[in-house]
Amino acid sequence: MRKTLKEIAQAIEGELSGDAGVLITGVSGIREAVSGEITFLANPKYAPLLATTAASAIIISKETEAPPAKNVIRAENPSLAFAKIISLMGPGETKRHKGIDPSVLLGKAVKLGKGAAIGAYVVIEDGAQIGDHVVIYPGCFIGYETKIGNGTLIYPNVSIRERVSIGERVIVHSGTVIGSDGFGFVEVNGKHQKIPQVGTVEIGDDVEIGANVTIDRARFDKTIIGRGTKIDNLVQIAHNVVIGENCLIVAQVGISGSTTIGNNVVLAGQAGLVGHITVGDNAIVTAQSGVSKSVPAGAMFAGYPARPFHENQRAHAYVHNLPKLFDLVKELKKKIEDLENKMKDRDD
Amino acid sequence: MRKTLKEIAQAIEGELSGDAGVLITGVSGIREAVSGEITFLANPKYAPLLATTAASAIIISKETEAPPAKNVIRAENPSLAFAKIISLMGPGETKRHKGIDPSVLLGKAVKLGKGAAIGAYVVIEDGAQIGDHVVIYPGCFIGYETKIGNGTLIYPNVSIRERVSIGERVIVHSGTVIGSDGFGFVEVNGKHQKIPQVGTVEIGDDVEIGANVTIDRARFDKTIIGRGTKIDNLVQIAHNVVIGENCLIVAQVGISGSTTIGNNVVLAGQAGLVGHITVGDNAIVTAQSGVSKSVPAGAMFAGYPARPFHENQRAHAYVHNLPKLFDLVKELKKKIEDLENKMKDRDD
Amino acid sequence: MRKTLKEIAQAIEGELSGDAGVLITGVSGIREAVSGEITFLANPKYAPLLATTAASAIIISKETEAPPAKNVIRAENPSLAFAKIISLMGPGETKRHKGIDPSVLLGKAVKLGKGAAIGAYVVIEDGAQIGDHVVIYPGCFIGYETKIGNGTLIYPNVSIRERVSIGERVIVHSGTVIGSDGFGFVEVNGKHQKIPQVGTVEIGDDVEIGANVTIDRARFDKTIIGRGTKIDNLVQIAHNVVIGENCLIVAQVGISGSTTIGNNVVLAGQAGLVGHITVGDNAIVTAQSGVSKSVPAGAMFAGYPARPFHENQRAHAYVHNLPKLFDLVKELKKKIEDLENKMKDRDD
Repeated sequence: MRKTLKEIAQAIEGELSGDAGVLITGVSGIREAVSGEITFLANPKYAPLLATTAASAIIISKETEAPPAKNVIRAENPSLAFAKIISLMGPGETKRHKGIDPSVLLGKAVKLGKGAAIGAYVVIEDGAQIGDHVVIYPGCFIGYETKIGNGTLIYPNVSIRERVSIGERVIVHSGTVIGSDGFGFVEVNGKHQKIPQVGTVEIGDDVEIGANVTIDRARFDKTIIGRGTKIDNLVQIAHNVVIGENCLIVAQVGISGSTTIGNNVVLAGQAGLVGHITVGDNAIVTAQSGVSKSVPAGAMFAGYPARPFHENQRAHAYVHNLPKLFDLVKELKKKIEDLENKMKDRDD
Repeated sequence: MRKTLKEIAQAIEGELSGDAGVLITGVSGIREAVSGEITFLANPKYAPLLATTAASAIIISKETEAPPAKNVIRAENPSLAFAKIISLMGPGETKRHKGIDPSVLLGKAVKLGKGAAIGAYVVIEDGAQIGDHVVIYPGCFIGYETKIGNGTLIYPNVSIRERVSIGERVIVHSGTVIGSDGFGFVEVNGKHQKIPQVGTVEIGDDVEIGANVTIDRARFDKTIIGRGTKIDNLVQIAHNVVIGENCLIVAQVGISGSTTIGNNVVLAGQAGLVGHITVGDNAIVTAQSGVSKSVPAGAMFAGYPARPFHENQRAHAYVHNLPKLFDLVKELKKKIEDLENKMKDRDD
Repeated sequence: MRKTLKEIAQAIEGELSGDAGVLITGVSGIREAVSGEITFLANPKYAPLLATTAASAIIISKETEAPPAKNVIRAENPSLAFAKIISLMGPGETKRHKGIDPSVLLGKAVKLGKGAAIGAYVVIEDGAQIGDHVVIYPGCFIGYETKIGNGTLIYPNVSIRERVSIGERVIVHSGTVIGSDGFGFVEVNGKHQKIPQVGTVEIGDDVEIGANVTIDRARFDKTIIGRGTKIDNLVQIAHNVVIGENCLIVAQVGISGSTTIGNNVVLAGQAGLVGHITVGDNAIVTAQSGVSKSVPAGAMFAGYPARPFHENQRAHAYVHNLPKLFDLVKELKKKIEDLENKMKDRDD
């Protein structure tokens, strides 16, 4: 959806300075914004970006000094105003199917909420509960007694097994599997006997799950994804993992069984975590790290095995300087030989 | 399913000491067991765990000393007894669809075994053979002339291409792809020309394959997964790979083309193996390792490039001690200069 | 398909020396070829392989010296001749469904090309354009206004979202997701607000995409895969990534947002690339590398963080020699102490 800056200023009850007629075509972060987009400044730390952002307009607080030659809207709370604009602008162009396709196979005692839209060839087993305005795309499978909260959006060919609980306004991208059996075996006479995985998965409100993600059900209890956490494509979440709120789990991360992740944690791409450890609130694990021990709250860990970021960098620097060290030791060896020879000469 | 300890003792013809009325709700390994679960001790090495396990009951041999204040069942062969209990307790609560859904699209000359249950919108191409009591969930695709053995369970949205052979009692989780073309090209005038992948895939009995796994068909011959091997989610198995029996392949492992894995091998999460190498029986490759050369039988390999575990640890220890080495060399340099100066003083 | 060497020689108008009756069952590279296959030699650098290849026949240029006791066909341009044979031999044995299955759900204004074959339970939304002789297997989803070029082949359970453009003769393997939302959020008051991903994906002619791959749509603009590029299984391609022509992207590679890859680039298995960097034409990134900075054209990068291959190898060699260095420094320390003691003795 496109709106003029004037329309946006009115919608958020902000005070506009600049070209009211500028057409705004999207929203973005202050660093990533391109021409045509509106962004915002909430943290004064980023004020220098006001001068360099390519955004066509910036929402700033009443106290912030406006950059010269930029369109700005002043608002009481720029963050809140920006959130309002995001929902105002919306994805806009996405058309979704409506109603229940005649081919949908509904089990017994399935509850369908108001305005739910279920696409062709979806199978919903007995006792499942689908909330209001849920959209399920074609080819999805919803197992028995699974609950899907209001406003949730499920893209094509998603498989959600039985007794899973999914919150409100969740987005699940195509090909994702939720509630598959955890990887649990016990060795009996040299063979791996399957340990029944009879727990489930609970996904909080406002979670987004990328494409071809796998989230295993718990052996007992629940695998849990906290409210507002965002998961990228091809991520593996094993049984009994507990992830807190507002985390960012980037593509191809793997989290082993029974590991607990706090709130606001960032796990960067391809990081791997062993089982039965804890990652504290606000911690960051950098890309491709191999985390073998618990990570304290607020820490930034890197490398393999993962350790504090600066420690890891220092180790890399030492390794980087090894050629010089080898040369120096060679030189010292020579000097010692010279000294030894001189000593010997005197002894003679 | 829940059973009293008394019922379990009777079923395995064991000798019960303790509270016969305790309700057992599940089975587990001695380390992982929680209250309500039954476990077993087969290897005397783990006897110390008898005192610390949280299990509500333990199966032990006639000779093992029972821990105080624990419920035990003595059996001739605790491993066999435990295997019996696993199948006795079963997953218990899982309801599966029955019969052949009217929407199933069956090709010509498809053989359907007794008691097979095929869910809605499954497509089975010409000449496929589906064994007795096979369960196929909705949305699966079974290519022509593919054979699926008795008692195999295939979860929703699995794609199995043509001429694949799958054993008995195999479990395939959702989203998995078996028999896709191997990644094979030959460069002709600067372009990658596809080399036809006309082989197939053969999967042994009692194999379990996780969600969103990919197993490519061979160029010729067969990609093979041996009997009893268990594969976790998001694993990549390239064309012409041969995996032995009773292996554990943990999530996000990648095995390149024509690599051969022995029996009882463990490949931990996110490990990567290059093509055309061999991993011997009973070998272990630790998480995130990059294996570029063959691994001998019984070895434990780690790191990048992967090498024997202790060698890799030693290398890490040396790197860890680099700061001290740099300091020491600096100190020695100073001492040499002092010695040189003293020598010079005397010469003067 | 099988052909005699004579038939093949005639088809490419080549000059045959050897056993005209040999039955050729397949094509392959000179290194990988097995008995029964035909291969070719274009680059004189590989001439030594003529003597060792297991191929049953080799296409060589008019000038190349034929190896003794091998069947050869001489052709003006061996590469071109070989490409002709590949299409002549074909996959041969693959039977595909024909026509439009009555269960296919077609939206409004969908254009279906001549000879298109659409399998059961496929959903094609409004305004999609399906080219001539396109084959779409069962269970696929094609979003609205998506275009699929002539001769493209899409295996079962593929999900292609709205407004995506796919070229001619493209192959997409099962479970793959094209056009899912990019992973884009902006933090507003401590919560991750979704940034609408309203761009699309454009895939060039002759691209092949493996199984369970994920390719996200751009935030604006397009995520682009260039003509002739081949992508293996379980690869992650984030929003706004641009990949050039004739690249090879091996299994489980992850490419972060807005990164640009040149032509003829090879990214080996499990490599990870951060966002907003550039990989130059003809560059190679080795397996499991973590690429954090741009890679120049023609370079070979390895390790974590990735750097020039030989530099990385040298660093590994230094680390490998650390035990010796520690020993040497210990020895030098001893010698210095000896020298110091001798000095002291003399002073006394």
